[in-house]
Amino acid sequence: MIGAECLLRTLWNHGIDTCFMNPGTSEMQFVAALDRVPEMRAVLCLFEGVCSGAADGYARMLGRPAATLLHLGPGLANGISNLHNARKARSPVVNIVGQHSTAHLRYDAPLTSDIEGLARTVSGCVRTLEEPGRMGEAAAAIVRAACGPPGQVATLIIPADFSWSEAGDPLAASASAELPAPSADRVREAARVLMSGEPAGFLMAGSAVLDAGRAAAAGLAAGTGARVFFSRYAARMTCGGGRFTPRRLAYFPEAAETMLAGLKHLILVESPPPVSFFGYPGRRSYLAPEDCILHELAPIGANGAMALQALAEECGVQAAPMPMPTAPGARPEGAGLTAEMIGYTLAGLLPEGSIISDEMVSSSEAILRQLAAAATFDHLPVTGGSIGQGLPVAVGAALACPDRKVVALEADGSGMYTLQALWTAAREQLEIVVVILANRRYRILDIEMQRTGAGAMGQRANSMVDLSRPDLNWVQLAQGMGVPATRASTAAEFTAQFRMAIDHGGPVVIEAVLS
Amino acid sequence: MIGAECLLRTLWNHGIDTCFMNPGTSEMQFVAALDRVPEMRAVLCLFEGVCSGAADGYARMLGRPAATLLHLGPGLANGISNLHNARKARSPVVNIVGQHSTAHLRYDAPLTSDIEGLARTVSGCVRTLEEPGRMGEAAAAIVRAACGPPGQVATLIIPADFSWSEAGDPLAASASAELPAPSADRVREAARVLMSGEPAGFLMAGSAVLDAGRAAAAGLAAGTGARVFFSRYAARMTCGGGRFTPRRLAYFPEAAETMLAGLKHLILVESPPPVSFFGYPGRRSYLAPEDCILHELAPIGANGAMALQALAEECGVQAAPMPMPTAPGARPEGAGLTAEMIGYTLAGLLPEGSIISDEMVSSSEAILRQLAAAATFDHLPVTGGSIGQGLPVAVGAALACPDRKVVALEADGSGMYTLQALWTAAREQLEIVVVILANRRYRILDIEMQRTGAGAMGQRANSMVDLSRPDLNWVQLAQGMGVPATRASTAAEFTAQFRMAIDHGGPVVIEAVLS
Repeated sequence: MIGAECLLRTLWNHGIDTCFMNPGTSEMQFVAALDRVPEMRAVLCLFEGVCSGAADGYARMLGRPAATLLHLGPGLANGISNLHNARKARSPVVNIVGQHSTAHLRYDAPLTSDIEGLARTVSGCVRTLEEPGRMGEAAAAIVRAACGPPGQVATLIIPADFSWSEAGDPLAASASAELPAPSADRVREAARVLMSGEPAGFLMAGSAVLDAGRAAAAGLAAGTGARVFFSRYAARMTCGGGRFTPRRLAYFPEAAETMLAGLKHLILVESPPPVSFFGYPGRRSYLAPEDCILHELAPIGANGAMALQALAEECGVQAAPMPMPTAPGARPEGAGLTAEMIGYTLAGLLPEGSIISDEMVSSSEAILRQLAAAATFDHLPVTGGSIGQGLPVAVGAALACPDRKVVALEADGSGMYTLQALWTAAREQLEIVVVILANRRYRILDIEMQRTGAGAMGQRANSMVDLSRPDLNWVQLAQGMGVPATRASTAAEFTAQFRMAIDHGGPVVIEAVLS
Repeated sequence: MIGAECLLRTLWNHGIDTCFMNPGTSEMQFVAALDRVPEMRAVLCLFEGVCSGAADGYARMLGRPAATLLHLGPGLANGISNLHNARKARSPVVNIVGQHSTAHLRYDAPLTSDIEGLARTVSGCVRTLEEPGRMGEAAAAIVRAACGPPGQVATLIIPADFSWSEAGDPLAASASAELPAPSADRVREAARVLMSGEPAGFLMAGSAVLDAGRAAAAGLAAGTGARVFFSRYAARMTCGGGRFTPRRLAYFPEAAETMLAGLKHLILVESPPPVSFFGYPGRRSYLAPEDCILHELAPIGANGAMALQALAEECGVQAAPMPMPTAPGARPEGAGLTAEMIGYTLAGLLPEGSIISDEMVSSSEAILRQLAAAATFDHLPVTGGSIGQGLPVAVGAALACPDRKVVALEADGSGMYTLQALWTAAREQLEIVVVILANRRYRILDIEMQRTGAGAMGQRANSMVDLSRPDLNWVQLAQGMGVPATRASTAAEFTAQFRMAIDHGGPVVIEAVLS
């Protein structure tokens, strides 16, 4: 069997059923092999940042990797930003990159570049295939590396000639490793802290924020008085539906510090210590009180939910869902289309089991506040802060969960980074409703400009954060890629259009022009 | 003076008048400083690949660098592909990348990544500013590094706190280094070869392909019988207007080998040795005959034109333009819109002094053949092969040369990579006519699929190179970014629309649907 087919079959044997690709000359054998391995779903993306972001979204929903197929160094380069986000999300991604044939490499041809150097900036594991006969072994190893735990980007670079050379048989699946049981020592230490009577809190991320972990956390909060916080960068949170929903740490450091104020102990569950997104003049980046002691109940990649359950048992409390009120908030005043109004509308209309791909940036807080009253949904937030995440993650989530509605809540500035995702949504007829939050500005930078001490904006500075002159027309952009689209400028228009969009099969874009 | 202002003033003092930017929080001080340094032209791009490609186009036209301003590692990552192309073009680029403040870096915040590692893959020089007081010196040094010769990408990484700290005075301009005179030994060796009577040829790139160098080459060809070729990857070639125009080496290796067949000597003038773009099964990558001896008249970065002039003198031939016929080709038959027909139309209508940004890919040869009969134009071809170059290079060229028309000849697949360039063209009202060559396919891959031995495409393979389902609508995409656009499906429509577009002020897109 030639290398290309051996790769696809080995990936399939190891649970990879979807590949997001933008192939070139050096990947042609893989493309040809798709007709011999029809089990592998191939999804064409018109820019590699869509491939890598879609693989992230896919992994966040299913907890297992999809593959990418990228063309040489430049193809990988275009995918790096969303691989960065996947890395910060601890998403497993099997990142396959084509390389020139081994005989061609020495000539420094136009497309030659340092692929390994690029890949190392985002990958937990980088390997260039050494010889065609190791294709099966390498493909199996790269899937294992991606899966971790914790999940990571694992990059396999394959010279073109190894794809057309004899490579032997594909590797059969091997048993996957079980997560080890929680550490009894860590559990006992956390229990001691909780029983001490000193103010204590949890900071949770990873798998711990899903239902099993949060039920245990709810019980611990009720039984011990501990405060519970979600990390801002947990990759996927199930929310709504009356669930106990801890607050996420705030974006700006003052607000986050206020949330953590007074704690003597902070128990980390699959989360790094709390730090602010950016550093600012005269302000510290670390967010917990100076005298707060950190305890790691479950390191990143461990089974935090099991650790929390063990801790609840150790503390003698019931690990049980703690219901929270689901009454909708008051309807925001006025007929204008504000972020609050969009959140209020979504809270009423989101179908049970929706998936929200959230790249709302400056509109985020207002909308998420309203969504506390929504039916159950999964929330996929920003993780690495590299913009252009939202639409590709929505594509990946929709392919992972074809029976659920995906709602991409997308800032207009960020959406422009990877708008090519809309074409893939149209081709695959994905169940995605995209809401473009059009404030026609990099609005968050108005605040950051003040915070970094840069002072008032003059006219020339202002024009660098201003997305008008000309206004983007997202209705035309979407239609240009085959996605039906409408524009809403009032609350009534948005409500009607969102209702129709949810009922519509396939992708829809609503450009929500904010008041 | 704070660091941000010191940077802008020092760059300006060293000849940098334009900065292509997509700033974030860590770059806010630079944005604010724009109002205090109004000499610096700031151009907002909605994706960093537009910034880096525009800087390449700017440098190709003016021979001096523009600056970029990119946000942290992800912003740089998005710019890498077009920096790769700039690197292969030997374009000088002053690549400024913001970094977290020094105090914030240790916390591994979401946006933290290995910026130096990324930058090294495309930069000839990478420096992270060590302290604010060295801002002026570092800015001056990075401009010098970018200018070379040869030109290169020089990256300066600036921690945010250094932009808001006291940095002292900006550095005044220093004298720029003169290119050394051609090596008499190299000239004598080349003259000996040309006088030997053995079949010899020139392979030219860099500055050697501009008018002075090619006039000398024309004289040498006429006087000694040497064959003259342009490298396929010369960054800028002045063509048309009856000029002596050597053939570019062909893209596919068989054709290129035929062009070089029989040569006993190949004299390189600012060009690397000839190699094919890709390696293919059973075919060598090196293109000159096995027994052909390479001679380097002028290394990359040297003054090849002066070396050719010295060589002409040594050989006793006149370095004089050798006129070539400018009679238009025969009108291609039929009313359909083929690449030949587009080339024929352009040849008749291109205004004197136009600049062609060429990312035509599969349509390239047919169009360029026709353009031999056009008025004088500058040709900016693909250099590094990373697609998404054409529209950003057009933006940079138009800003560099506001009195000239830029015509971007763009494949539909490649155009999708950096379509955000159209918004900048609209905002800056650039004189760019974009012709989208819409064959609705990664057409070149049809050929590459065969060449790599992957065989006939099945239905699933075919769908990975097919850009239909749905068709892209470039008229809507362009209008969505504020650029007027039309669609042409016949020769008559294209001719009428191109004529109108040339007369129109500001950017225009024509979607040319190929027959």
